[in-house]
Amino acid sequence: MEGVKIVTIGGGSSYTPELIEGFIKRYQSLPVREIWLVDIEEGREKLETVGNLAKRMVKKSGLPIAIHLTLDRREALAGADFVTTQIRVGQLKARGLDEQIPLKHGLLGQETNGAGGMFKAFRTIPVILEITKDMKELCPEAWLINFSNPAGMVTEACLRYGQIKKVIGLCNVPIHMEMDIAKLLEVPKEDVWVRFGGLNHLVYALQIFLKGKDVTGQVLELSTDPEKGMAMTMKNIMPVSYEREFIRALGVLPCPYHSYYYRKDEQLKEELVQLKEGAVRALKVQEIEKELFALYQNEDLDIKPPQLEQRGGAYYSDAACSLIESIYTDKRDIQTVDTRNNGTIAGIPDDSAIECSCIITGEGPVPLNIGHLPVAVNGLVQEIKSFERMTVEAAVTGDRDKALLALSINPLTTSDKVAKAVIEELMEAHKDYLPQFNR
Amino acid sequence: MEGVKIVTIGGGSSYTPELIEGFIKRYQSLPVREIWLVDIEEGREKLETVGNLAKRMVKKSGLPIAIHLTLDRREALAGADFVTTQIRVGQLKARGLDEQIPLKHGLLGQETNGAGGMFKAFRTIPVILEITKDMKELCPEAWLINFSNPAGMVTEACLRYGQIKKVIGLCNVPIHMEMDIAKLLEVPKEDVWVRFGGLNHLVYALQIFLKGKDVTGQVLELSTDPEKGMAMTMKNIMPVSYEREFIRALGVLPCPYHSYYYRKDEQLKEELVQLKEGAVRALKVQEIEKELFALYQNEDLDIKPPQLEQRGGAYYSDAACSLIESIYTDKRDIQTVDTRNNGTIAGIPDDSAIECSCIITGEGPVPLNIGHLPVAVNGLVQEIKSFERMTVEAAVTGDRDKALLALSINPLTTSDKVAKAVIEELMEAHKDYLPQFNR
Amino acid sequence: MEGVKIVTIGGGSSYTPELIEGFIKRYQSLPVREIWLVDIEEGREKLETVGNLAKRMVKKSGLPIAIHLTLDRREALAGADFVTTQIRVGQLKARGLDEQIPLKHGLLGQETNGAGGMFKAFRTIPVILEITKDMKELCPEAWLINFSNPAGMVTEACLRYGQIKKVIGLCNVPIHMEMDIAKLLEVPKEDVWVRFGGLNHLVYALQIFLKGKDVTGQVLELSTDPEKGMAMTMKNIMPVSYEREFIRALGVLPCPYHSYYYRKDEQLKEELVQLKEGAVRALKVQEIEKELFALYQNEDLDIKPPQLEQRGGAYYSDAACSLIESIYTDKRDIQTVDTRNNGTIAGIPDDSAIECSCIITGEGPVPLNIGHLPVAVNGLVQEIKSFERMTVEAAVTGDRDKALLALSINPLTTSDKVAKAVIEELMEAHKDYLPQFNR
Amino acid sequence: MEGVKIVTIGGGSSYTPELIEGFIKRYQSLPVREIWLVDIEEGREKLETVGNLAKRMVKKSGLPIAIHLTLDRREALAGADFVTTQIRVGQLKARGLDEQIPLKHGLLGQETNGAGGMFKAFRTIPVILEITKDMKELCPEAWLINFSNPAGMVTEACLRYGQIKKVIGLCNVPIHMEMDIAKLLEVPKEDVWVRFGGLNHLVYALQIFLKGKDVTGQVLELSTDPEKGMAMTMKNIMPVSYEREFIRALGVLPCPYHSYYYRKDEQLKEELVQLKEGAVRALKVQEIEKELFALYQNEDLDIKPPQLEQRGGAYYSDAACSLIESIYTDKRDIQTVDTRNNGTIAGIPDDSAIECSCIITGEGPVPLNIGHLPVAVNGLVQEIKSFERMTVEAAVTGDRDKALLALSINPLTTSDKVAKAVIEELMEAHKDYLPQFNR
Repeated sequence: MEGVKIVTIGGGSSYTPELIEGFIKRYQSLPVREIWLVDIEEGREKLETVGNLAKRMVKKSGLPIAIHLTLDRREALAGADFVTTQIRVGQLKARGLDEQIPLKHGLLGQETNGAGGMFKAFRTIPVILEITKDMKELCPEAWLINFSNPAGMVTEACLRYGQIKKVIGLCNVPIHMEMDIAKLLEVPKEDVWVRFGGLNHLVYALQIFLKGKDVTGQVLELSTDPEKGMAMTMKNIMPVSYEREFIRALGVLPCPYHSYYYRKDEQLKEELVQLKEGAVRALKVQEIEKELFALYQNEDLDIKPPQLEQRGGAYYSDAACSLIESIYTDKRDIQTVDTRNNGTIAGIPDDSAIECSCIITGEGPVPLNIGHLPVAVNGLVQEIKSFERMTVEAAVTGDRDKALLALSINPLTTSDKVAKAVIEELMEAHKDYLPQFNR
Repeated sequence: MEGVKIVTIGGGSSYTPELIEGFIKRYQSLPVREIWLVDIEEGREKLETVGNLAKRMVKKSGLPIAIHLTLDRREALAGADFVTTQIRVGQLKARGLDEQIPLKHGLLGQETNGAGGMFKAFRTIPVILEITKDMKELCPEAWLINFSNPAGMVTEACLRYGQIKKVIGLCNVPIHMEMDIAKLLEVPKEDVWVRFGGLNHLVYALQIFLKGKDVTGQVLELSTDPEKGMAMTMKNIMPVSYEREFIRALGVLPCPYHSYYYRKDEQLKEELVQLKEGAVRALKVQEIEKELFALYQNEDLDIKPPQLEQRGGAYYSDAACSLIESIYTDKRDIQTVDTRNNGTIAGIPDDSAIECSCIITGEGPVPLNIGHLPVAVNGLVQEIKSFERMTVEAAVTGDRDKALLALSINPLTTSDKVAKAVIEELMEAHKDYLPQFNR
Repeated sequence: MEGVKIVTIGGGSSYTPELIEGFIKRYQSLPVREIWLVDIEEGREKLETVGNLAKRMVKKSGLPIAIHLTLDRREALAGADFVTTQIRVGQLKARGLDEQIPLKHGLLGQETNGAGGMFKAFRTIPVILEITKDMKELCPEAWLINFSNPAGMVTEACLRYGQIKKVIGLCNVPIHMEMDIAKLLEVPKEDVWVRFGGLNHLVYALQIFLKGKDVTGQVLELSTDPEKGMAMTMKNIMPVSYEREFIRALGVLPCPYHSYYYRKDEQLKEELVQLKEGAVRALKVQEIEKELFALYQNEDLDIKPPQLEQRGGAYYSDAACSLIESIYTDKRDIQTVDTRNNGTIAGIPDDSAIECSCIITGEGPVPLNIGHLPVAVNGLVQEIKSFERMTVEAAVTGDRDKALLALSINPLTTSDKVAKAVIEELMEAHKDYLPQFNR
Repeated sequence: MEGVKIVTIGGGSSYTPELIEGFIKRYQSLPVREIWLVDIEEGREKLETVGNLAKRMVKKSGLPIAIHLTLDRREALAGADFVTTQIRVGQLKARGLDEQIPLKHGLLGQETNGAGGMFKAFRTIPVILEITKDMKELCPEAWLINFSNPAGMVTEACLRYGQIKKVIGLCNVPIHMEMDIAKLLEVPKEDVWVRFGGLNHLVYALQIFLKGKDVTGQVLELSTDPEKGMAMTMKNIMPVSYEREFIRALGVLPCPYHSYYYRKDEQLKEELVQLKEGAVRALKVQEIEKELFALYQNEDLDIKPPQLEQRGGAYYSDAACSLIESIYTDKRDIQTVDTRNNGTIAGIPDDSAIECSCIITGEGPVPLNIGHLPVAVNGLVQEIKSFERMTVEAAVTGDRDKALLALSINPLTTSDKVAKAVIEELMEAHKDYLPQFNR
């Protein structure tokens, strides 16, 4: 059959309109024949709302793209070319618990870092591994593009334990950083190119080019400007301005999530304030989502509403479309994705996921070589990779000792005793979504 | 000339009697001809006290060992076979500042870890490098046995920047651990053998043998016994009893200093209490030292007084004598020392210092291979090695940015901002001993 | 000053017209202001002949490019942006000796492999290192693009011992292979893309894409076709058709030079025939060169004559122009060059030169990561890299023992005794060009 | 039950008396309760002859060691503590073919190197893997001590594909080298100690100690003495005297088998002479064996006859007894064995077998770390390791393409075409012993 079949699992997500827009605008190079939006029973209503908007968008475009809405994942997967996953197991309610429970014990509460990230991994990994099993059976040649968080650990789980090997993780942090660097330099985005390397949500801009010249030093200085530098962050992270001498000696630009490690105290304090005010991120997002779905229900709306760009996850879906296009056309352009390390970063196991600049070929990503990370960067990256590997192993085996070990070695954890208390409470809170730990 | 010439720099230390005892009891295999105790002007009085005790001890032994006391290091070094260094630049007063100033900013205050360890390295490394310079000129074939703390970083500094390559670092932690394990198992010390690996003050018992059988699992369980396990620590560290599941999943036995990382909260709290009570470790040690020197002044004393074994550094000097004996006799027995990694532990640079079980040959230590550390251990070890490498580079270059970077990436540090404040205060407090940062 | 300054050392080479053509056709993106053709006294005549042709070519193009001819290298280098080196120390006469002397002792005689390649390295490396010294002084920001053979070892010498770090080696083998693969597949060259990796003149096609799909297996089968496969070689190498099962199990496509190792016997036999017939490659090339220079002297000629493409080195110069253009424009396209390994291929030292697919940025090449080579490939690559490292060290130090060691470990050498005899004869034959061994 | 149970598979070997002598003389530290000599139907007669000699030797000793002779391997294995394997699948007749067939095609014919070694591996590995399967069932805690050749590849096969992990390979080359070095230095054997590293039959003396001092340089010089150096070889290898400058630059001492690589031409020539004279090694060994068994049949003989020491394999069995004693007593002395690399030699896969100095603990060998081999050594070692890995994979899978690949990449092979011819002939000649290739 002509054209490309896309399956989007978690299709009822508020981000779907961006995805649809992305496919519409790339139609000439990436002729999508059908898009299957898949969700679960609990998401039926959102799926219909967003699915209908998707249909209106396609209709407006005049393109021969068929939109299918379904709760039957296996029906959708059969014969797929690309599968994207944007699921949130336990929905925003679970995220709220990930944020609040660790904070109660004095640990950072966050969706992808620390105890919260660990439990999100515990909930998400088994579901994604099931999807790879279905894919092996129903569409063994298809690519899985995952942007469910924590994207790095989910990708690593697929690479090490999944049934298919064509798996790529995706994150919008590098895109945001590139945009923010362009703003800092007061130049058009097109003039800036960044060579990235590290882990998901722990990625560094290793080298920054302005029209082909290395301006890394200049950007590092600007990034510590108490005003300008502050702008460089994600929607969900309190901006910080690092000490200039620290960043200068570091020699590479950290991503916004690094502030949980390099500015532990302030980030924790800020979150504790939010907790007290009943304003953890999950609650804010719930409101934003509500507003977005209200918009989506408007039957006159047939474009991606501009408000969506204000949501933290902006550019994710566009990045996914770009990636799919480059694979489909063997474009061999450079994109930053989560993929198998295979020696790219020295000292990280070959089968671990890293996040780095890659060329995207018709057979998937090939990383640009990195070699040894700067010494001062390597320590933190290795520490988090240890945590990630342990977390993935615990997620797959359901071994509670490993879960405790993983959290105890996380640099945000204050002791194995606190780790134990936090894990016990989170295990109980999320028990419906953690069958592997409750056999 | 027949016999061995030993030079001990920092010879006025309270530990010297243990060293003298060690040489006396090994005389048959290690015929020491002369021992030079070297100190600086500020230590003249202690040098004389301890030196006179040494002379009485030798006299009692009836052995032809000449004891020399001098403030002239170069005179002593000429023609030496072995040089031991047990110096404390800035004396216990400086240690007190290392302990108190970080605590005032909410960071652990400790002699070899965190900010305190960093500044001890800053004060000590330039002096030891000077010694290697003198040795190259005056006794190029001699071995330098260092037990000045932080022994790992001092050894690494010598390996990377020193003028001689025959350098070994020494620590009493592995010996203490082996003894404590024997106690836990309720067996004689001789029946226990431990394969060690990691970094100085961050070493792990990787495999524990009881009469040739692997009993690691059993010891790990015992170590978490709330009563028995508690006994496993150094004089200067509050004992902790880890969560059993944590240790079981870790799979190797941490050393007492690990509790600063795996039990950050309690150790910090305990130290803050000590600070409040005016009882940081340096002050306690000052008292112990005072008592010891009072004993040493007794002209009837001609043995190592048993009270010395209560001091935290017990067995250090005996370990040094053992090491010297094994080199001298090409004994090829197994001892745990700080030496060049050279691929022993995967992922650590070849030229970095590690602490591990080695055979001791006539040409120095050869490490028993380790390979990949357990995943959960590797993260912390890499993180601390990053800190150590940066600290050594800052110590050698006097680059204040690197000093800030080193402290900011230390897992005990809460933020780059706090790191900056702590560094500024310590730089000022120790400025007389930090010429490299004040050029 | 506007525009780019190019310096070509060995400007009197017969390849220069291809270079000039390359710059003319890229003028819109790569505005070359001046080209300096540099040669030595012995090459004055050829320099003038080819230089005048270059001037006629530029004149015909109507572009404002100034051509300078000079014997003064330092004058030329001042302020250069790009320096290309295409020198042949000792000229074709030396090549003849490299080919004949080893053959007399039963060893392969070849310009870039075995004893001949070793001596070409000995003659060339000191000269290129001198050039890097001049460049550091006169144009420290310029790139050195070397295509003097043996390009891999020359590049490695620059990376390890050169005064500048902006050095890239270039070879036309990958381009030829890509063309030959397209012919094998009977498709346009543009539809084929190959991911290369290995060493210079020992590079493998690791993965072959046809319109984005992996066709490596298919090409491997075709390559062993006794007729079609035979076409896949360079001008200077006798074509072979490997055993199908061998290539299938190898799993990657060797380059033409591999036949010296995988078909030692036939290649050696063929060369011995040539030796007997007085027809070693150097002699053939001398004739071709003579013909070419006869053509170049024709004052009506103002284009690159088509006969030049028949010469073994075709596409070299075009590759150089492409590379310069991509650096100048930060094009980030993929080209195959010789560059610093830096962990790209596992098990090869970071500072060694490898040949592999790279993206070409404004700051030079960044390799596409390779990781572990296939096991069966790794052995030969490591063996040759050992030879190359030893050869480079001997070339730089003038240590004759190292020269003997290098040749003795080469897999084409039958014994250390033969190696010694060959070296002695070549050292004598080339002594005018080997000052480092004759101090 | 008290005491140790030993099982020797291939118990009918002529070496068995050395083994028995070894156990008798170590009885105080290694109380052997029973020794089971196992053989196959074809070896029944030799088993009885040698078994009866063993019984007489034990009787003479007066020790309570029971000798059992059996053709039932499984009966013997039940409850064993140590299993030694000294099998020769296809007996000396097969060895003869391994030596003659490659030579007919111009390749070296040798028991453990090149095509012959490959086919010995093909015949032996499946049998040893079967033994590990039986051991897993019948004596899962026992150690397998293999000295069947090619010992390196057999050990690697067990480590990667065996059912038990307690496997050690053993070779007498290091012991011979140490003895020969002592002779060269004209000192007692006890005064010499050598640090070894490399692969089986490709091991190097990396560092040579005389009474604790490094005398490597001195031994290297002596080893090239045309008279003295010549003595340094095995019974089965023609002695060579290397070029002094070659050995000096190599910096480590090669083992006798290295002459197949560093002196390819002379060794091949010598073997071709032997072939012509009908005197390949297998035939000589057949005669020696005949004589030995004639001796063994003498019912008055109750000691190991001195003639056995003239056989090439002398000291093998004594080494095995030493190894068993050190494991049994957790002696932690240093012995050279074949074991898992696990990072000991840089650049060799963790799961490959290497040969190196190890301490022998109650839980088996722990290698002394080596790190990077000298550059010039690394190439050959990597090349042979590639060959070994491919050979093992072919042996286990029965993949004929891999067999061809393995032989084609061996540095002793002149081309893939010759490799194919040799393999075809050897596959046919040995087909009764190669079921895996004939399914």
